[in-house]
Amino acid sequence: MKKLLKEKTSFVSDMLKGMALTDESHEVVADSIIVRKEKKIGKVALVSGGGSGHEPAHAGYVAEGMLDAAVCGEVFTSPTPDKVLEAIKSVATDAGVLLIIKNYAGDVMNFEMAMELAEMEGIKVDRVIVRDDVVIENKEQRRGVAGTVIVHKVAGYYAEQGLSLEEIKSKVEALLPNIATIGMAIEPCMVPTTGRYGFDLADDEMEIGIGIHGEKGIYREKIEPIDKVIERLMTEIEANLEFDDAVVMLNGMGGTPLSELSVAAHYLDEYFKSKNKSITKFLVGDYMTALDMQGFSITVVKSDEALIEALSANTKSKYFL
Amino acid sequence: MKKLLKEKTSFVSDMLKGMALTDESHEVVADSIIVRKEKKIGKVALVSGGGSGHEPAHAGYVAEGMLDAAVCGEVFTSPTPDKVLEAIKSVATDAGVLLIIKNYAGDVMNFEMAMELAEMEGIKVDRVIVRDDVVIENKEQRRGVAGTVIVHKVAGYYAEQGLSLEEIKSKVEALLPNIATIGMAIEPCMVPTTGRYGFDLADDEMEIGIGIHGEKGIYREKIEPIDKVIERLMTEIEANLEFDDAVVMLNGMGGTPLSELSVAAHYLDEYFKSKNKSITKFLVGDYMTALDMQGFSITVVKSDEALIEALSANTKSKYFL
Repeated sequence: MKKLLKEKTSFVSDMLKGMALTDESHEVVADSIIVRKEKKIGKVALVSGGGSGHEPAHAGYVAEGMLDAAVCGEVFTSPTPDKVLEAIKSVATDAGVLLIIKNYAGDVMNFEMAMELAEMEGIKVDRVIVRDDVVIENKEQRRGVAGTVIVHKVAGYYAEQGLSLEEIKSKVEALLPNIATIGMAIEPCMVPTTGRYGFDLADDEMEIGIGIHGEKGIYREKIEPIDKVIERLMTEIEANLEFDDAVVMLNGMGGTPLSELSVAAHYLDEYFKSKNKSITKFLVGDYMTALDMQGFSITVVKSDEALIEALSANTKSKYFL
Repeated sequence: MKKLLKEKTSFVSDMLKGMALTDESHEVVADSIIVRKEKKIGKVALVSGGGSGHEPAHAGYVAEGMLDAAVCGEVFTSPTPDKVLEAIKSVATDAGVLLIIKNYAGDVMNFEMAMELAEMEGIKVDRVIVRDDVVIENKEQRRGVAGTVIVHKVAGYYAEQGLSLEEIKSKVEALLPNIATIGMAIEPCMVPTTGRYGFDLADDEMEIGIGIHGEKGIYREKIEPIDKVIERLMTEIEANLEFDDAVVMLNGMGGTPLSELSVAAHYLDEYFKSKNKSITKFLVGDYMTALDMQGFSITVVKSDEALIEALSANTKSKYFL
């Protein structure tokens, strides 16, 4: 196994220290939590996180206008409830704390347990669960993937605006059914702490419907030209979401070069034009990755003015562009 | 070969169209040149470029405060003189045009030929040649690599300040000997237009002194923990550049995940601390890549107040952060 690391056991804490070096507004707590140094007062604080390996998610979104804390488990491993509780307590305000959880059994269990513990300490907490991966048929079992970053930004905007915990939760829950994501890969990721690949792919194969933890796709298919790949993915999305105008996030999986991601962006734009649909805001880059996986996901969000306003509002995160 | 593309022949033009989609201030000319829509008046215009495959360089740096045009050849192939001439003519002002050239025989020849052609048309043009890759012993033969992005930013700042062509050239030439870069890789890149790897590496090997066009390194060594790798690279840099305070660019080669790059950032910072040297500005990200290569380069620039001011000045490029 070849990875750029010192020791497997310190991979996540070394990484968080490195990320904090280029953002003076950050500090690292307990080797696994990134918080804003400047604490909110009287406004709802936002906490997200989960396993590491999705950088810049979630630590990179700890910034004015987005998250107040990110709690980072080991690679692809949910953080423990005590760490989530510590993150909550680090940023809690009188207005309360909203947890933004990706739908994985471990994350949901640990974040909800931390929520109960925080409530016992008199902190007002609630949570939303993101399930945007439409490749899973059962809606309750859908995984939280790149659409989670859209939720960070929208909730962050409303929190800055001074909305109450109830109002933010209600607005996010109204948004969630309008977000649909699907991902693909041409090369798997290698987990730096184990040296294992999530799956093996032949030289002419791609995986459709991959997860962000090295999970293999739901479909294994022969690779096609990028315009056909995009049509394949958009067909799944359109079967799950009705939309005319859309915010689109084209998310690199970590090992995808910007050149190829940009080629994909061009053909995704062409696809929208061919359907007489418009992209009201186009986000292209690495937002929610799976280590060094080569591939991308497409997130489509039904667009309206309020969404564009929330997504376009200023944030100090250098990773939401 | 597996790559995210439609046709090899349209890879670069498709990529540029994709990049322009997320930057409304850009336009694509002649399928291979990215220019700012808003033309400078009375200030020096900056043109850079070279082969493609280094994204975001150079197209991503076409923005207020950095470049006015980037001329993009095929992957790892110098653009022809007529294309460079077209880029020059697209942005030329009465104050003149400065070409920022990476030191490769093809680039130098084609940019200088375009310079002569532009002069024959009455355009004032000059050029600087970047040779920052210290792994090559002969200083004249050193390649232009990630340090070129530092030059884009500094020259862009002075151009915005209204300095003359002569003044900008002179300031850049004073800066050039203060920039030192060296790169390493644990996985080669695959060229999307040929399906070939630049080199093959065993599971326990790394290449020290790689180029950004898939060129293999000058040294092939057994991979070591990241702190040792950094010490190895910094030893080469320190043999070539004397400095106390430094601006440091830790540049991902395209396929390196942010997690590993951040781990490297942490140990690079530790290295500086151990030497009682300080990092006055720390740039960490993908600036000058080699397609999907996994690895990174370190650029050290001797720091002074004027440099910090130039690098910290505002630019609208979303890739210089």
